[in-house]
Amino acid sequence: MSTTKTGVDAKALARKRFEGVWEVIRAELLAHFEAQGMPIEAREWYKRNLDYNTPGGKLNRGMSVVDSVQILRGRSLTDDEYLKAAILGWCIELLQAFFLVSDDIMDQSVTRRGQPCWYKLDSVGNIAINDAFMLEAAIYHLLKSHFRQESYYVNLLELFHEMSHLTEMGQLVDLITAPEDAVDLSKFSLDKHHFIVIYKTAYYSFYLPVALAMYMTHIPTTYTLGSTSTDPYKLALDILLPLGEYFQIQDDFLDYSGTPEQIGKIGTDIIDNKCSWCINAALAIATPAQRQVLDENYGQKDAAKEARVKALYEEIGLPAKYKAYEEAAYQRIMGMIQQIPEVEVKPTYANEPAVLQRQVFKVFLDKIYKRTK
Amino acid sequence: MSTTKTGVDAKALARKRFEGVWEVIRAELLAHFEAQGMPIEAREWYKRNLDYNTPGGKLNRGMSVVDSVQILRGRSLTDDEYLKAAILGWCIELLQAFFLVSDDIMDQSVTRRGQPCWYKLDSVGNIAINDAFMLEAAIYHLLKSHFRQESYYVNLLELFHEMSHLTEMGQLVDLITAPEDAVDLSKFSLDKHHFIVIYKTAYYSFYLPVALAMYMTHIPTTYTLGSTSTDPYKLALDILLPLGEYFQIQDDFLDYSGTPEQIGKIGTDIIDNKCSWCINAALAIATPAQRQVLDENYGQKDAAKEARVKALYEEIGLPAKYKAYEEAAYQRIMGMIQQIPEVEVKPTYANEPAVLQRQVFKVFLDKIYKRTK
Repeated sequence: MSTTKTGVDAKALARKRFEGVWEVIRAELLAHFEAQGMPIEAREWYKRNLDYNTPGGKLNRGMSVVDSVQILRGRSLTDDEYLKAAILGWCIELLQAFFLVSDDIMDQSVTRRGQPCWYKLDSVGNIAINDAFMLEAAIYHLLKSHFRQESYYVNLLELFHEMSHLTEMGQLVDLITAPEDAVDLSKFSLDKHHFIVIYKTAYYSFYLPVALAMYMTHIPTTYTLGSTSTDPYKLALDILLPLGEYFQIQDDFLDYSGTPEQIGKIGTDIIDNKCSWCINAALAIATPAQRQVLDENYGQKDAAKEARVKALYEEIGLPAKYKAYEEAAYQRIMGMIQQIPEVEVKPTYANEPAVLQRQVFKVFLDKIYKRTK
Repeated sequence: MSTTKTGVDAKALARKRFEGVWEVIRAELLAHFEAQGMPIEAREWYKRNLDYNTPGGKLNRGMSVVDSVQILRGRSLTDDEYLKAAILGWCIELLQAFFLVSDDIMDQSVTRRGQPCWYKLDSVGNIAINDAFMLEAAIYHLLKSHFRQESYYVNLLELFHEMSHLTEMGQLVDLITAPEDAVDLSKFSLDKHHFIVIYKTAYYSFYLPVALAMYMTHIPTTYTLGSTSTDPYKLALDILLPLGEYFQIQDDFLDYSGTPEQIGKIGTDIIDNKCSWCINAALAIATPAQRQVLDENYGQKDAAKEARVKALYEEIGLPAKYKAYEEAAYQRIMGMIQQIPEVEVKPTYANEPAVLQRQVFKVFLDKIYKRTK
């Protein structure tokens, strides 16, 4: 995809506008703290927690709520609609912050988004656990203050509960399958990888933003799409989970094949004993001799062993295997998108129920297909 | 309070019945895990997490939901009503488990309820953080499966969100006021203690069980009580927060004055630099010389220094001061309870709104007044 000057500007502008809403949200959360009589040190602590951990990422998840609402409404949004969509987007970013702050402690990570992990700061340490909880609590505070009057309020609450629960289930399986200090490749498999990726990443990163946009545009849980009655949320899930899996497999592959310039970090999946697509795809076709090489070299803090694993990935033709996977995934997902009945796009207003559009999913797929960073 | 043989039996029976509901809940939560296709190791892990961390406490918070519903209904409960009240009770116990598992990591505690803290188990470690999240997630799963059809469902969700948030705010203030490794008594004060206790303990331990019972018995948010219109939830809050504070101050005092036989553990608040009522009451009246003794001896892992602090507590007459506090608190709370209009107690049925009863609060106060364990 070439990015024209205008494209870059539009993207930067969109990000800037979305970031502007963060200022509003932060002010609201801090005002609540003040109204509750929290001591000044606690208010300053909370502010630092919010700012250190919530913005600063790519914001793809959050901004895709806004994009999806816009596509579903078939027009640009009013200021009030934009604000609401952006708040839902920031709620995903808060959920992500809650997960990342705590995952970093569990994984004993050192850096995140180019700065020390929050818990690694001298003054923070394990207080980060409670700070993670407060990021989560902020979600429900915002939903209450901005959506309590909406007919779909309870759907939003349940959606966040369920997505959180599923993500935590995925994290549990990941933690007991791939502990950093006890390599056991017999616990790995492509099935296990599939499970972890769907639960730990796809639900909250791909289904959640679209489902939030669908609720906000009053898409009902069943309606007639084309000639048959269907559940549009189920349809979205059926497309977005494979899409999320495709995204994560790509991420896993880039960790191995991407240059630091491309991916903005040095890949460490091999030395960290990560349950990556690469190792699982390798295990699936390894000869007994190759398997032994993997057993002896995977998941160890040793550059020579890491290089041996990488060489083996080349030997067994992992790049070609990935390319084949990517093509097949793209075709399969595109096929599913095309099963959504084509509808005439016309703007819908205020509380009028919107209709599911192929474009919502195409935008996601286009952003991901053949990305190299 | 003397406990007759019948009293003991009734209490043991009530606990047994309440514990029976835990079996039902656990089975439901595990069935959900199985239905989601979770691998067997993850199902076993979850079961162990649930059982290790949820039952095993005094269950006062959970059982008081059942007791309160019964008082408010003015009759014994149907099996279905009992189950629902007990599920709400267990949701508080799950919330408590979520807090305790994570607090123990943050405080680097060693034992809890007479066994090693969950995170201290070799196989667990920091995975306990995610396990704590899953205990929290179980609450919303249960509320959805048992209360989704109820008119007060959204009130339950908001109540759990809000109580969690307030508790986490209290925990934050406690963590930054009284870090175990940096004693600074100038951060302490009776006001700070009041704040921490109300937020960290009183809301979820005292207000939450009663408010849940009130929602379950369809008590509306405003109604005419006696001759004036009132908010019964506000009334309950105004009584239960001071009651919770009284309970915690008692707990703090027993940590210092109670024998291990009485309190079932050895008090460590002084050596752990806890922001206890005792140190704050002492600081409030200490002469400069006494203050120096406290600065030099509080919060250190040294038995002689601990003894020096205890001796000073005696010197300044802390036991008498506590006794005076207790009497005043009892009278004040009793006075507030008596402001609830006396109503004729008559059984209410099914979805009929109940009326707030003094008895709900008296039961709490009687359990606490002059307890020595």
